[in-house]
Amino acid sequence: MLLDSTAAGLFPIAPTPFHADGRVDTASVETLISGYLRAGATGVTVLGIMGEAPKLEPDEALNLTGRFIDGFGKLPVIVGVSAPGFAAMRSLSRAVMERGAAGVMIAPPPTLRTDDQITGYYAQAVEAIGGDIPFVIQDYPLTLQVQMTPKVIRQIVMSHPSCVMLKHEDWPGLEKISALRGFQRDGSLRDLSILTGNGGLFLDFEMERGADGAMTGYAFPEMLARVAALQKAGKRDEAHDLFDAHLPLVRYEQQLGIGLAVRKYVMMRRGLIASDAQRKPGSALSATARAEVDYLLARLGAKDELARV
Amino acid sequence: MLLDSTAAGLFPIAPTPFHADGRVDTASVETLISGYLRAGATGVTVLGIMGEAPKLEPDEALNLTGRFIDGFGKLPVIVGVSAPGFAAMRSLSRAVMERGAAGVMIAPPPTLRTDDQITGYYAQAVEAIGGDIPFVIQDYPLTLQVQMTPKVIRQIVMSHPSCVMLKHEDWPGLEKISALRGFQRDGSLRDLSILTGNGGLFLDFEMERGADGAMTGYAFPEMLARVAALQKAGKRDEAHDLFDAHLPLVRYEQQLGIGLAVRKYVMMRRGLIASDAQRKPGSALSATARAEVDYLLARLGAKDELARV
Amino acid sequence: MLLDSTAAGLFPIAPTPFHADGRVDTASVETLISGYLRAGATGVTVLGIMGEAPKLEPDEALNLTGRFIDGFGKLPVIVGVSAPGFAAMRSLSRAVMERGAAGVMIAPPPTLRTDDQITGYYAQAVEAIGGDIPFVIQDYPLTLQVQMTPKVIRQIVMSHPSCVMLKHEDWPGLEKISALRGFQRDGSLRDLSILTGNGGLFLDFEMERGADGAMTGYAFPEMLARVAALQKAGKRDEAHDLFDAHLPLVRYEQQLGIGLAVRKYVMMRRGLIASDAQRKPGSALSATARAEVDYLLARLGAKDELARV
Amino acid sequence: MLLDSTAAGLFPIAPTPFHADGRVDTASVETLISGYLRAGATGVTVLGIMGEAPKLEPDEALNLTGRFIDGFGKLPVIVGVSAPGFAAMRSLSRAVMERGAAGVMIAPPPTLRTDDQITGYYAQAVEAIGGDIPFVIQDYPLTLQVQMTPKVIRQIVMSHPSCVMLKHEDWPGLEKISALRGFQRDGSLRDLSILTGNGGLFLDFEMERGADGAMTGYAFPEMLARVAALQKAGKRDEAHDLFDAHLPLVRYEQQLGIGLAVRKYVMMRRGLIASDAQRKPGSALSATARAEVDYLLARLGAKDELARV
Repeated sequence: MLLDSTAAGLFPIAPTPFHADGRVDTASVETLISGYLRAGATGVTVLGIMGEAPKLEPDEALNLTGRFIDGFGKLPVIVGVSAPGFAAMRSLSRAVMERGAAGVMIAPPPTLRTDDQITGYYAQAVEAIGGDIPFVIQDYPLTLQVQMTPKVIRQIVMSHPSCVMLKHEDWPGLEKISALRGFQRDGSLRDLSILTGNGGLFLDFEMERGADGAMTGYAFPEMLARVAALQKAGKRDEAHDLFDAHLPLVRYEQQLGIGLAVRKYVMMRRGLIASDAQRKPGSALSATARAEVDYLLARLGAKDELARV
Repeated sequence: MLLDSTAAGLFPIAPTPFHADGRVDTASVETLISGYLRAGATGVTVLGIMGEAPKLEPDEALNLTGRFIDGFGKLPVIVGVSAPGFAAMRSLSRAVMERGAAGVMIAPPPTLRTDDQITGYYAQAVEAIGGDIPFVIQDYPLTLQVQMTPKVIRQIVMSHPSCVMLKHEDWPGLEKISALRGFQRDGSLRDLSILTGNGGLFLDFEMERGADGAMTGYAFPEMLARVAALQKAGKRDEAHDLFDAHLPLVRYEQQLGIGLAVRKYVMMRRGLIASDAQRKPGSALSATARAEVDYLLARLGAKDELARV
Repeated sequence: MLLDSTAAGLFPIAPTPFHADGRVDTASVETLISGYLRAGATGVTVLGIMGEAPKLEPDEALNLTGRFIDGFGKLPVIVGVSAPGFAAMRSLSRAVMERGAAGVMIAPPPTLRTDDQITGYYAQAVEAIGGDIPFVIQDYPLTLQVQMTPKVIRQIVMSHPSCVMLKHEDWPGLEKISALRGFQRDGSLRDLSILTGNGGLFLDFEMERGADGAMTGYAFPEMLARVAALQKAGKRDEAHDLFDAHLPLVRYEQQLGIGLAVRKYVMMRRGLIASDAQRKPGSALSATARAEVDYLLARLGAKDELARV
Repeated sequence: MLLDSTAAGLFPIAPTPFHADGRVDTASVETLISGYLRAGATGVTVLGIMGEAPKLEPDEALNLTGRFIDGFGKLPVIVGVSAPGFAAMRSLSRAVMERGAAGVMIAPPPTLRTDDQITGYYAQAVEAIGGDIPFVIQDYPLTLQVQMTPKVIRQIVMSHPSCVMLKHEDWPGLEKISALRGFQRDGSLRDLSILTGNGGLFLDFEMERGADGAMTGYAFPEMLARVAALQKAGKRDEAHDLFDAHLPLVRYEQQLGIGLAVRKYVMMRRGLIASDAQRKPGSALSATARAEVDYLLARLGAKDELARV
């Protein structure tokens, strides 16, 4: 089933589980998939920035993708295909779509500056992968160094029918969601799914601004799914109560560079993966940092009984 | 009294209060000073990035500084003197020190890349302003685009006796505090005050890592002062309880570009300043954003009775 | 007399002559002015990036500007007023215009990324300095980190009647000149003077593409004036012959970081200024570099008798 | 035969010849190899930035590399293996070395800032590809955004015996060559081959500063080889005479973004390749630009009879 603009809910950004010796831990992939489904995921994104994709051999990447596709069944799997060249982007896109992926995600390269350069890049990317593959724009200025205005995003969406989703990860970004939803109300922008990232740091208000859900990798995916659902159901205070209980940890995990180490450590403690190992070169948590996470987990468990580890 | 490495506690980054027509609101400067002293400030920093300093005429900047110096009495006032040229940096530094400032804060220009460029820049700055003026290194990569390792900071400190403080605003930055304190334990770094910024987003753990206090502008400065004090007193859980209550708003205020608008709006609602106006060109809060802040304030007031507005 | 869009010919970017001890060398300012007028300058630009403007005290900057205004008589003097804040930009602009300047030059700050940010910045700058002061857009991506498309430049020009000139310093930039001249032919852009920079490295072809002249500081300004005049007169081969004779030195001078040291050294050897000193912090030529420049000068003198030193 | 630090002379950066329809033009690969050998190449570098490597499928890249290895016989072939991840870098490195390459070239990713980050990256890269593969550091700040000081380069070289060459492409960079050669004289740096890039724009003086030759793709490789040889033979004036004759075209070709289009166009006119096509997405020369190149070629032919086309 192909991804379309009705996608909503929770698409976790899946980490790649490794054994301590660097091999992909395929058993943990299965545990992780079960955990995501239990948490209420409505889809999943693999080979993202936090998935350690550049450390995978091509066949490893394809195998990993296949396992998620099989595990998620009819739920859509999005595959990150950002690459320094269009040859690699095309090859990977065609391969994962044949394998059953629902769509691909494309981040802009860091050299793009002007509006025309950005829209031009996406036109070239669509030409490279083909107009039949649904794709997601990844808008993540903090890491990618590329700034897309709402108008630029609109132009990409309106020029390419295969663009069905925005992974919104601007920071700050609340007004951007409002601007895009405003474009839709005034008729200048067609339907577009908006899922938000940044570790969930603004998910509470992003949902109120019109986001359709979350696409990020916070180690308690059920919180993301529940906050999204509560907001959709109009239970604002409940949504914020739950969100606020998790915010100290969300904030701690949202540290560039060590965030993945925090996330994998919590996932390991929760039993979602067997080891928090990263393939080399990886970042590691100091003993102090681990103790800080343990402290945050203890405090969280006291507030959210479902989050006890 | 000159700034030295024993400085600790809370040095708020003071905003500049304006009337709606753009004139400096001198009455609000007095209200703000009283508010800071009541909140437990042990010093203050003016003409910082969030102080709209580049919009002030030289005489306005000097008058504003003078008012803070008079209002803070024996407590130290630090003045931001970062400038594109050393002539302006020297003039402003000499002028504010004559007026009674305790020291100056110097941010690196965004073009610096290599370790040698950074240490070379600070050597030139010290030569320009003179070795008799205590100065603060501002380490704020997210905005300033300059990355200083702990070793580079150590080299600057050890090369210049007049360097007495680090405004630590790296992100993530907990390990950097630990590394610098480790240098002191191994004898390779002398005493150095470390105050932390980033709107206070990690103040809870920064204190545990060895920070001496906060230098940032969160609209409830008493929270910053109390968290710093609680941590110094070893009351860890209490510190985190108070911090966590404020975190949803701290997080909301810490949005680049609109953070100052949020901060001034909350300060206006609290009566710390009369108007949330920024001098042109400024950012403004949308009606939706103001409503979001109101909602956060209502929730905060329910948790921290001292924070009711 | 105010700058307008008919400006053409040579506007040298004037360096600031210093004594070895760092004082402004006012006698050399006069020598330099005479040299520029003899070389065929039709105007001059002061306080530019290569003018060491950030090292000047405000009164020094104003005095220097005044001397050029007096020395150039009815010929226009453009003053660089780029500043980190609009207060300083406005003050300097009003001051130099009162003193008799013909217009000001404004460079965008390095943080601008999107098209809207760039046009928004110029709108704010015009509001700050007033719509009655003619201004020049400085388009210099290599140093300023801001990329303006021809469409963005057109939008700035069409939005602000006081925008009369583009200092074109994109690299590569030949097609940009053609695009802008094409906009004028299709009626979407009004008259605009285009003077080119980059040390003159592409002046030969820039004139053929439609530039009106040069605004750069190469140490043999008469070459720039003659190449511009020869191209205007349709003497293409002669223009290239002269240009090519100078190209080895033009290329050598066009080295970021040490270019000003090369330029001042050659100007000193030519008697245009008494000393090649830069005010601290400055770059210095190594003995090897000086010998290389001497070698290039000897070779140049053998080809262009007017360029013998 | 493995690359070592005695490498010298000319290693052209080979473009990838394409048919107009985007297929690799294998016949032109042979013509190009013959042309390079006739021009005096002592080696060659493939899959470099100007080789359109990111547009090649993995098997195309390997085939192309194989053809150069076969064509160059005992002369060394260097292969660009820069990649966003170490998995791809390792795979490609092992594959080309098995096929007979002499070494690989590694550029730093644009995110590296501090000295420690740069040396750390090369340590990880060596661990990834193995310490038995000779490698070249590519130092190209203008495009790669990473600034390496001479001290950082020395640290990489001294930490990794397999580092045998620096592709020097800093700009300006003459003093960097002198600094590195000075390190060798004072005994702190071991033997290191230094070949220079930047299209040859400073080759005349780079050889005098101690470079061993050129590694760049200027469309008249024989000029590069001859200038290097003349300088080695102490024929300084002859070297500069020849260099200066080519400088107008060297300068024209050295335009970021369209340089490759100029280069391929000249190579096509010279018969080195059959078509100047680039695989999509590529840059194209305007009719005006082509006419400018034709004009430069006509002028060059009048000065250097060997360069007539």
